[in-house]
Amino acid sequence: MLKPLEDRLIVAVKEAGEQQVGGIVIAQAQEEKPVTGKVVAAGPGRVTEAGQKLAMTVKEGDQVLFDKFAGQAIEVDGQNYLALREKDVIGILA
Amino acid sequence: MLKPLEDRLIVAVKEAGEQQVGGIVIAQAQEEKPVTGKVVAAGPGRVTEAGQKLAMTVKEGDQVLFDKFAGQAIEVDGQNYLALREKDVIGILA
Amino acid sequence: MLKPLEDRLIVAVKEAGEQQVGGIVIAQAQEEKPVTGKVVAAGPGRVTEAGQKLAMTVKEGDQVLFDKFAGQAIEVDGQNYLALREKDVIGILA
Amino acid sequence: MLKPLEDRLIVAVKEAGEQQVGGIVIAQAQEEKPVTGKVVAAGPGRVTEAGQKLAMTVKEGDQVLFDKFAGQAIEVDGQNYLALREKDVIGILA
Amino acid sequence: MLKPLEDRLIVAVKEAGEQQVGGIVIAQAQEEKPVTGKVVAAGPGRVTEAGQKLAMTVKEGDQVLFDKFAGQAIEVDGQNYLALREKDVIGILA
Amino acid sequence: MLKPLEDRLIVAVKEAGEQQVGGIVIAQAQEEKPVTGKVVAAGPGRVTEAGQKLAMTVKEGDQVLFDKFAGQAIEVDGQNYLALREKDVIGILA
Amino acid sequence: MLKPLEDRLIVAVKEAGEQQVGGIVIAQAQEEKPVTGKVVAAGPGRVTEAGQKLAMTVKEGDQVLFDKFAGQAIEVDGQNYLALREKDVIGILA
Repeated sequence: MLKPLEDRLIVAVKEAGEQQVGGIVIAQAQEEKPVTGKVVAAGPGRVTEAGQKLAMTVKEGDQVLFDKFAGQAIEVDGQNYLALREKDVIGILA
Repeated sequence: MLKPLEDRLIVAVKEAGEQQVGGIVIAQAQEEKPVTGKVVAAGPGRVTEAGQKLAMTVKEGDQVLFDKFAGQAIEVDGQNYLALREKDVIGILA
Repeated sequence: MLKPLEDRLIVAVKEAGEQQVGGIVIAQAQEEKPVTGKVVAAGPGRVTEAGQKLAMTVKEGDQVLFDKFAGQAIEVDGQNYLALREKDVIGILA
Repeated sequence: MLKPLEDRLIVAVKEAGEQQVGGIVIAQAQEEKPVTGKVVAAGPGRVTEAGQKLAMTVKEGDQVLFDKFAGQAIEVDGQNYLALREKDVIGILA
Repeated sequence: MLKPLEDRLIVAVKEAGEQQVGGIVIAQAQEEKPVTGKVVAAGPGRVTEAGQKLAMTVKEGDQVLFDKFAGQAIEVDGQNYLALREKDVIGILA
Repeated sequence: MLKPLEDRLIVAVKEAGEQQVGGIVIAQAQEEKPVTGKVVAAGPGRVTEAGQKLAMTVKEGDQVLFDKFAGQAIEVDGQNYLALREKDVIGILA
Repeated sequence: MLKPLEDRLIVAVKEAGEQQVGGIVIAQAQEEKPVTGKVVAAGPGRVTEAGQKLAMTVKEGDQVLFDKFAGQAIEVDGQNYLALREKDVIGILA
């Protein structure tokens, strides 16, 4: 497994064909629309310039909505993941 | 539903044909004019570098005026929403 | 009415033909010259990264001088207003 | 009169033909050279992000040297003034 | 040896043919994918503007995942190393 | 005379023909090399965002080495001076 | 001699033909590789915005590795030196 640093999240991106989570349908026609995914690992939180660790809001297992162009693509055991920072997460699907 | 992070607001954008709220008419001719919408969900507030959570001014249910080009378009249950940050809100219609 | 957020000011812009306030004449020939207007609504003040609310200097009713290209044009009840931030105000006409 | 905000200074710019103040001659040939002027109004001082008001060094009546391209041109009672920020002032002529 | 300054890490980059660590396979086809390496030396930590030294999360001996384009290439005793900053490390392979 | 503000220094630039100070010869061939000069006036020091005045290291009378492209050229009593900020001074020649 | 300001270091750059220090060979083929040098003078340390002087890690006499394009070239007594800031030093050769 991968232990993300700071406020990074490792996210399993939802495939286009299955973009319907909790009643929310993400438009596929418009390329710039945010996409969803499931958080498989979350970092401990970012440390500010004042030396304070900021607690994470997003937890492992959360379904999150994030900007399509955010993060870095990585591959673990043949599956695609995205390494995001928590600030790139728009919201948690509940 | 979507629980927005930080100081984000989920806003139901007002359609052009109905741009008249509380006596305020938003000009349609000039494309750059701000538009209005109703806040359907509000985040808990942004945390500063000093580690302090800043309280939100805008609440769920508020009618807000915001820059036309601000935010990210999302789609929930077939309706268009905008994910804005509170700093992009010009004012609350009262 | 519109309640502006942070340090925003809602300003009724003075028409070109009447640009003479308190003995001050603003040049019309040079397009880049600042213009004047009357503040019809003022926000509560900006909150700093340290979490401190900064008091507003400009009050409702003040005649202010501001950069011609500052702010965002809005329209309320058929009248043009400008949404400015206090930092864009050069000075108060007294 | 105009009461400048923050650390702004309202300066009466010296005409080219009279650019000799206190024995200092400002070169006219090279366009980028700083110019001089007399401060006719000074703001109360800038407030930092920490919420502290910084005292002004420049006072009304001071002759100051500033970058030719700094500030915004305004016109009061038919005279040209410049609205500068104190940080754009190189020094006080004494 | 080289003692890195601040939050720098000296990393032995994994060769492409051996990009499989702890069950994680890094895709080779897509050039922008992050790569892995072993930390051979770690700095003492970055000092913030507030004068506080931030403890390092990454230790000597850790296997790390980092952006392909991060860091500066150096050569020690005929082997390639990369000098990274800890902020460029996405996560620790465990 | 000119009293510089903040951390500014008024420097009498050394002419190319005399670029040898304290055994140090500044290369003339390469245009980008730093040049030297004598400080004729020094400001009181810069005030930080935290409201603290930072003491000056450079004093009136010091011979300083600074980047050729730093500062603003001014002319006082027919002599060329440069208005520099202390941060642009590489070192003091001793 | 030259007393550097803030966190500057005066470094005697190693000639290409002698780029082997403490068993470390710096590649010459690739132009972007960092180079090494010996510190002949070190500043007292940088003062932060909070007014705190940060102690220097690099000392006079240290062999340092730094980015090839960092710093400003100066010439003292016919020898080439580089004026670097400590943040541009990757590590100390030990």
